[in-house]
Amino acid sequence: MGRPPVSALGRRPGHPETRAEILEAARALFAADGYEGTSLRAIARLAGVDPALVHHYFADKPALFMAAMRLPFDPRPVQEYGETGGFSGARVVQRFIEMWDEAQASETAFVTVAQAVCASPAVADAVREFVGERIFRHAPGDAGRAQAAPLAMERRALISSQLIGLAWSRYVMRLEPVASAEPTLIAGWVGPTIDRYAVGEID
Amino acid sequence: MGRPPVSALGRRPGHPETRAEILEAARALFAADGYEGTSLRAIARLAGVDPALVHHYFADKPALFMAAMRLPFDPRPVQEYGETGGFSGARVVQRFIEMWDEAQASETAFVTVAQAVCASPAVADAVREFVGERIFRHAPGDAGRAQAAPLAMERRALISSQLIGLAWSRYVMRLEPVASAEPTLIAGWVGPTIDRYAVGEID
Repeated sequence: MGRPPVSALGRRPGHPETRAEILEAARALFAADGYEGTSLRAIARLAGVDPALVHHYFADKPALFMAAMRLPFDPRPVQEYGETGGFSGARVVQRFIEMWDEAQASETAFVTVAQAVCASPAVADAVREFVGERIFRHAPGDAGRAQAAPLAMERRALISSQLIGLAWSRYVMRLEPVASAEPTLIAGWVGPTIDRYAVGEID
Repeated sequence: MGRPPVSALGRRPGHPETRAEILEAARALFAADGYEGTSLRAIARLAGVDPALVHHYFADKPALFMAAMRLPFDPRPVQEYGETGGFSGARVVQRFIEMWDEAQASETAFVTVAQAVCASPAVADAVREFVGERIFRHAPGDAGRAQAAPLAMERRALISSQLIGLAWSRYVMRLEPVASAEPTLIAGWVGPTIDRYAVGEID
């Protein structure tokens, strides 16, 4: 969508701080009402701008959430990469590490996100909801297993715990050899763990 | 050791803030020089007190480090518990979760430690050194395997990554069912992962 005509934009249409104000409003509402409970319309209202202007700056709600929370990448492609041609825990691990490695150069490195999540239970809640919406609804093992929902929750939480722990060890604690090893090497070590959590015997 | 006579204590022997000053000096030095590079004597010097006074308040260097960094428990008993009668990943996981659960009620909960580690690479370095000194020197698989040192490092880092990820999921992200499950249940899910990392095939 192109930029709408100025007359349709409500207050402060061309103001240079408009984008920053939308982000500030988004951070406040996502923290107060969670990811799912916040609409782009409510963010526009709090920022005092027309909803069309929010869409001008941010493609959709996930994009605005990632910008507001400084998440460097959408987790969904990591999961999709891991499922190309059958689920592979090693591919999930490799892509997860590669994406965070790429983010290290930016101000949205893992430790920045970790600080924000540690500092506020509300941010933690919103990030958990966001990741759940982007990934967990499409987790492996879901198809035709409606009755296995509680088990699927376990699997998702266990996969998440191992991946986050890897990022913590690599970027925050800088624990060797995880801190410096090539992503493919780490994928070889940890892939079987993710495979078991995703599709193996866990009870 | 009982409290030494006042005449032996150097400056500020009975000052009510002495303990707090020792802790402040300890935090500064551990962050500057790491866990291994900091002596109790240097901490006493920076705090302006006699070394005997440091020993009066803190049993040894690990005890002072834990107090300074607000670590709620010594990791060594967790490891020892896991090795009672042969290594058991499930016992390690159970004890690790139980210890952090007990710490939740105090001001030294996991999220407090996580905040301090995220906020400062120097603190992260010191905590990594401390945990390494308390646990990794006695890790499973070490006996008679001098040539396997690099592999042992991998094993230690992988175990650490899974345990920290569990604590993150349970206490910071509050991701169900890991957030509320009984420690024994989590031990059943994650124990085999720790077993493989500790003594199984990982390459």
